Amino acid sequence: MEADFIHWLRTQVRSPAAPWVGIGDDAAVLEAPGGAPLVFTSDLLADGVHFELARCGADRAGRKALAANLSDLAAMAARPVAALISLALPRQGAAELARALYAGILPLAEEYGSPIIGGDTNCWDAPLAIGVTAIGLAGPRGPLLRSGARPGDEILVTGSLGGSRLGRHLDFTPRVREALRLHADFELHAAIDVSDGLSLDLSRLAEESGCGAEIELAAVPVSDDARQLAAGDDQAALAHALGDGEDFELLLAVPPDAARQLLDQQPLDVPLARIGRCVERPGLWQLAADGRRRPLPPRGYLHGTAE
Amino acid sequence: MEADFIHWLRTQVRSPAAPWVGIGDDAAVLEAPGGAPLVFTSDLLADGVHFELARCGADRAGRKALAANLSDLAAMAARPVAALISLALPRQGAAELARALYAGILPLAEEYGSPIIGGDTNCWDAPLAIGVTAIGLAGPRGPLLRSGARPGDEILVTGSLGGSRLGRHLDFTPRVREALRLHADFELHAAIDVSDGLSLDLSRLAEESGCGAEIELAAVPVSDDARQLAAGDDQAALAHALGDGEDFELLLAVPPDAARQLLDQQPLDVPLARIGRCVERPGLWQLAADGRRRPLPPRGYLHGTAE
Repeated sequence: MEADFIHWLRTQVRSPAAPWVGIGDDAAVLEAPGGAPLVFTSDLLADGVHFELARCGADRAGRKALAANLSDLAAMAARPVAALISLALPRQGAAELARALYAGILPLAEEYGSPIIGGDTNCWDAPLAIGVTAIGLAGPRGPLLRSGARPGDEILVTGSLGGSRLGRHLDFTPRVREALRLHADFELHAAIDVSDGLSLDLSRLAEESGCGAEIELAAVPVSDDARQLAAGDDQAALAHALGDGEDFELLLAVPPDAARQLLDQQPLDVPLARIGRCVERPGLWQLAADGRRRPLPPRGYLHGTAE
Repeated sequence: MEADFIHWLRTQVRSPAAPWVGIGDDAAVLEAPGGAPLVFTSDLLADGVHFELARCGADRAGRKALAANLSDLAAMAARPVAALISLALPRQGAAELARALYAGILPLAEEYGSPIIGGDTNCWDAPLAIGVTAIGLAGPRGPLLRSGARPGDEILVTGSLGGSRLGRHLDFTPRVREALRLHADFELHAAIDVSDGLSLDLSRLAEESGCGAEIELAAVPVSDDARQLAAGDDQAALAHALGDGEDFELLLAVPPDAARQLLDQQPLDVPLARIGRCVERPGLWQLAADGRRRPLPPRGYLHGTAE
């Protein structure tokens, strides 16, 4: 339901007086009078949806909740400055659970320079829900939006994709350092983090930018996790890479010259791969090994689909 | 558990580089480079704890979730500028529920100049949880903290207290306009909003300020709701006023001259009453009609107490 709902919500919310982005990007941007642009993102992670508390443990659940929000800041090329954490805790053993959650949250908060400055702690007769709001500061080039891609831009992605459910969806590295480095040193047009699936997130970036996107299927970096899940079936492994989501890698639209430099220099600790390009014609397209272009239906993991 | 947990959390969180308040006030304060101080607050409201969805309806639940956060901004004398809303929706009928929640949220957001700039929407097999982060801008006098009260300050409160469970806990007016007006025109030392109960919230203000507080029991403005619940028992009505909470009125520590002006001028649409004063000796004290001073055990509504 989320896409429809966000479309509806966008029609309901009046434009604010301050310059900003508002609903629909990875994070919202707000400029305090006289100040640098601040970037805000909120994600609520729920037991049974984004993690299975009994299986993964509270520290990994807490870490993921903050890391997913830091990944949204990364997608805006914003430096984390602070976060707020709100907990709805199952009543039984709530105090122990809260401490265990923070055992995962606090080291990550310190590593990324994002101290916990506030929040809320409640108990209830229901499963754990973790609400996080992360605050970031845009650099001198301003926030990196979803909407800046242009036809002809190359599409690059960090790392490899698919099969995150084997564990990486909990223990991933939010690509904050990578995004800040790239945005400072190279001309980037647009970015999104791969949270719901490569094809779905790329289709969002293209739609926000008013263009289309074409993926060269053979160029998609398929993770070992995806291959493991696919048990030797290359097509199935590729489907995992295209649609699993929760990779939390950076998906970038980059003008050709900068893309060439990036691919040559490989300036990050994680590999950068070219997987396609932006095209005039709206929609998402796949370029198969035989050179034929066909529509690629966006697929991804929509958390908690409604009935 | 919340007080203990917040004490623990304060010891775990490293002091950040930027000047701010951090955990423990009504909201956190953050100064973007070159910008005016921004104020942040997050509250997570849960079905069965902060509202009974089946009884009150989604629009009132949604309104309350935003209003409670606006009340925290009011307690800091910060002007609302934006909010983020994260929903965990029960799967069945999630889309309708989300729209009904926003039917309560959006008019209040518009009335208070606080457009919804982002958030998150999920479905799960559990009751409704609403996470709100509200962002405010401090005025030229800076944010109004809990910690500025001094012995000799008069303690003032807006409106009347107790019995909010009869409906006012859903339909209250966040005292944003009142706080901005008072902070601009009068010297105030400290403020908190009455969310958990007059005696408990006053004890917090006093503790943060390093002083004590003395309440003149006969001066506490007891609401008609409290009297109705007490069915003619004045002591019981007073107990409601002291401990029910969710009044979302402003509790202020004001130096004597400013307090006199405020009480004479009554510059607000809502009455301002003097209920006591700040004292050197730490703790919370009651001054009975016979002039005797006794300890007053702080009592209040702690949402979702842990087992």
